Order: sequence, then C-alpha cells, then structure tokens
Amino acid sequence: MVFKSHMDLALDQARLAADRGEVPVGAVLVAPSGQIVAKAGNRTRELSDPTAHAEVLVLREGCKALGSERLSGYDLYVTLEPCPMCAAVISNARIARLYYAAADPKSGGVAHGAKVFSHSQCHHRPEIYDGLSATEAEDLLKTFFANRR
Amino acid sequence: MVFKSHMDLALDQARLAADRGEVPVGAVLVAPSGQIVAKAGNRTRELSDPTAHAEVLVLREGCKALGSERLSGYDLYVTLEPCPMCAAVISNARIARLYYAAADPKSGGVAHGAKVFSHSQCHHRPEIYDGLSATEAEDLLKTFFANRR
Repeated sequence: MVFKSHMDLALDQARLAADRGEVPVGAVLVAPSGQIVAKAGNRTRELSDPTAHAEVLVLREGCKALGSERLSGYDLYVTLEPCPMCAAVISNARIARLYYAAADPKSGGVAHGAKVFSHSQCHHRPEIYDGLSATEAEDLLKTFFANRR
Repeated sequence: MVFKSHMDLALDQARLAADRGEVPVGAVLVAPSGQIVAKAGNRTRELSDPTAHAEVLVLREGCKALGSERLSGYDLYVTLEPCPMCAAVISNARIARLYYAAADPKSGGVAHGAKVFSHSQCHHRPEIYDGLSATEAEDLLKTFFANRR
C-alpha cells in the first residue's frame, strides 16, 4: 500500500473533478485528531452552484458533521490558491492551517488580488503553507484548460 | 396595501433573521423580468454553515432555480455591505447590479478591506449602489448587538 499525503488525496479529488468536466481543484479537510473528515473536488457545474468550490464543499461538510459554523484547529489542504470567496470562508470557519499547492495569479485571493487575509476586516488568519506539489497541481490545470480550447 | 421596495423586503428578512438569533442581514434576488426569485436572511447558526449569509442563500437558490451557476442580468438587494465571501460569489454569479444599505467598515469586502471588486483577479464587477435605507439597516444591527451584550 502506497502512503498518500493529504495533498496527494486532494490531487486525486482534482483529477476526479476534471473527469466530471469541472475545473480540477481538490480539497481535503483534516480534524485536529488527524482524521480526514471531508474530501471534495469542484462541483459548480454539476450543482449549478457558484459556491461549490472544493474548499467550500469540504468546509460545509465538516461544519455540518461537527454541528458548528467554526472548525477551530482543523487544517485544509487544497490544490490551488483559494479565491477570495474560499479565503473568506476559511477565515470565517477559523481554519488553523491552510496548505495549498499551485499559486493562482489570475483568480487567487490569498497571495494575489484581494489578499483576503491581509486586512483588518479579516478576523482570523490561518497559518499558510504554499507550494506543496505545486507542479503536479499546475499540470492538472494546464492540461484541463488546454483540452477545453 | 403598502408598496414595499426590494430593500424593504430585504429589511424584513433581516428582522426575521434577528428573531432567529442570527445577525440581522437580509437579501432579495430579482430576475431581469423584475420577479423576485429568492429572499433570505442569515442562517449560519441554524444551518451550522459559515457560508449561509443572506446573499449566498439567495444566490444559491436563484442558481438552482435557473439551473445555472450564473445569474446574468439579475439584481441583488442586501441590507449590509457584503463581506469578501459574498462579494466574490456576487462576482462569480455575474450579478448585474448590487444594491446595499449599511456600510460595514468592520467586516465589509466591497468598499472596505479586501475590496474584492477592485482587483484584476475579479472577472466581473456589478454596478454598485449603496446607502439605500442605510439608517434602518444600521439600527437593526445596532439593536441586535446591543441586546447580545
């Protein structure tokens, strides 16, 4: 049995999203115990829901399971830099650590553009670790968009 | 029968949210035909869902009804300046016009902080009209937070 890191599992979710015709982004939510509590890829098209990014899906599932709108101490792994929507949900849910793979200069909201965590109006900022498996995540996105052209 | 504006209806939703113990913010989504397609107030506590702001609830409902992740030509009325999450969803859903009542210097993401619509990473910016019924919306919020202290 091959050990898969949390980011590997998020990449698996991204690949499954691509297979469904969705932008290949995947996310994994990990409880303070180390248990994986939710995994998802994008489903905006399938669900006709502009909020159905991988991050939002796992955060909503985790909150529902916990019966709380906050996930203090939980970690989130995602294959792409979160957009402003996802960054704000990550903050509102009080996620402890955010790990993301590829940077997103075009639509990102963490290191780019709105930089959601970098303002006094943001009331919780997670620890942020970027660049894990970035090449693999970028390649998935490049292949997906190349095939759509 | 008293005529109620769209913002009056959003304020009604904010009052109903306060009655449920939720932060009193309300939203109304209007189709290009002028028909009101969704009304909601905040439900983050009730649903244990940090994304269940009034704006997100009406946008998700509208998208589901239309069977699309985009609501081109639709207008959104909300009693408080949207946070970065809601602003990003408004952009992603391609809302045509955003009307909001009270400004939110503490947590807003339109005129404050992240200013989500003001970056090249934001791919659609609605027309924005602020200040409608602002005093009424502010009073609702002030009363709610005063009663919680």
